[in-house]
Amino acid sequence: MLRVYLQQGRADARAAQIEQLAKSAGKPVERIDAARLQARLGSAVHQGVVAEVAPLPPWHEDELLEAIPTHECPLVLALDGVQDPHNLGACLRTADACGVLALVVPRDRAAPLNATARKSASGAAETTPVVTVTNLARTLGLLKEAGLWIVGADAEAPQTAAEVDLNGPRVLVLGAEGRGLRALTRRHCDWLARLPSRGAVESLNVSVAAGMLLYEALRQRRAT
Amino acid sequence: MLRVYLQQGRADARAAQIEQLAKSAGKPVERIDAARLQARLGSAVHQGVVAEVAPLPPWHEDELLEAIPTHECPLVLALDGVQDPHNLGACLRTADACGVLALVVPRDRAAPLNATARKSASGAAETTPVVTVTNLARTLGLLKEAGLWIVGADAEAPQTAAEVDLNGPRVLVLGAEGRGLRALTRRHCDWLARLPSRGAVESLNVSVAAGMLLYEALRQRRAT
Repeated sequence: MLRVYLQQGRADARAAQIEQLAKSAGKPVERIDAARLQARLGSAVHQGVVAEVAPLPPWHEDELLEAIPTHECPLVLALDGVQDPHNLGACLRTADACGVLALVVPRDRAAPLNATARKSASGAAETTPVVTVTNLARTLGLLKEAGLWIVGADAEAPQTAAEVDLNGPRVLVLGAEGRGLRALTRRHCDWLARLPSRGAVESLNVSVAAGMLLYEALRQRRAT
Repeated sequence: MLRVYLQQGRADARAAQIEQLAKSAGKPVERIDAARLQARLGSAVHQGVVAEVAPLPPWHEDELLEAIPTHECPLVLALDGVQDPHNLGACLRTADACGVLALVVPRDRAAPLNATARKSASGAAETTPVVTVTNLARTLGLLKEAGLWIVGADAEAPQTAAEVDLNGPRVLVLGAEGRGLRALTRRHCDWLARLPSRGAVESLNVSVAAGMLLYEALRQRRAT
């Protein structure tokens, strides 16, 4: 966080507490009038308190591996070949809502974390780290060595997501829409999990599929 | 369906069966070469058989109420004040994948089923009917009389989605992002169900929230 803006006139206990917290963290607090505060936000809704944040720097693979042991039951989301920045952003937003440790994406054949992706992420790009890796299969191997089991979403899987044990350290892997997981990625999966596909349309949107699989993981952990 | 295109050279049993079915339904079958078939589809993948369909006409409330008794365990999705056509389309696609009977949206303060929504729906606008109603609360009342129970998604609900009984005729209601369900809609809900929101970002995208709630309904029905 860089600084806090407080709307002039807010003198309640909550505002005072926020001001206190920011100051004790060494962050500047600025009082500005309602019009100037709104001007900084465009059409976004606020309650008179705005924090300005720096973009979250991307994580390297090493930082992800170092973070794993600090979490009791880490949940990592990996996207295999998702090329649409909107979908990357939407997955990041969903990952954030579900308490995912980090989002792993391969460097090649993948959507960049650009302005479009950041907007779709609705702020999650500033809170959930993205780890861009050269070789997804290799990273999945390292995560497996770190104690995580790899679960891939697959429309043809014999087991439903509810039948797969997601209550433990897990990497959930989603493939590109239509094409699904690449063969090499699939070989690294300990389990494959099926999601609903009863309709006439080919497949779920990847962020919706990610949402369902993450929901199921949280349900099994009784953590929704 | 308007007509069937069969790729020249497909002479297998499956193609013959499709041709037979189309003809017995009085639909024209045209043999065209691979290049012309692909040209009709843009970049879409096919297996040598293409059906041309007319846009699905919107349902009236009466048609929805008539369809209810013909389904053993009907599942209806309702959107309360979702204004973004992308989100409408994404919800329609998810509804289709989850075997939803119909999608109910209010006429006012709601996204139109325009070209943007149809594209986001990836074809689901041609298979899952949309019912545009004048008064959502009234329609929810009629659906309740028809034997469906109304479940609203609510970030503050004391019960998680998994704790609500979704294994029966149900209407699942999602509110607009950020604002949630309107007070009148909420009053018509028999239950409120909480979905994951552990992140820093305000809320789930509405199509992801719809996906999670529909997933949970199918899980409880053992129908994923």
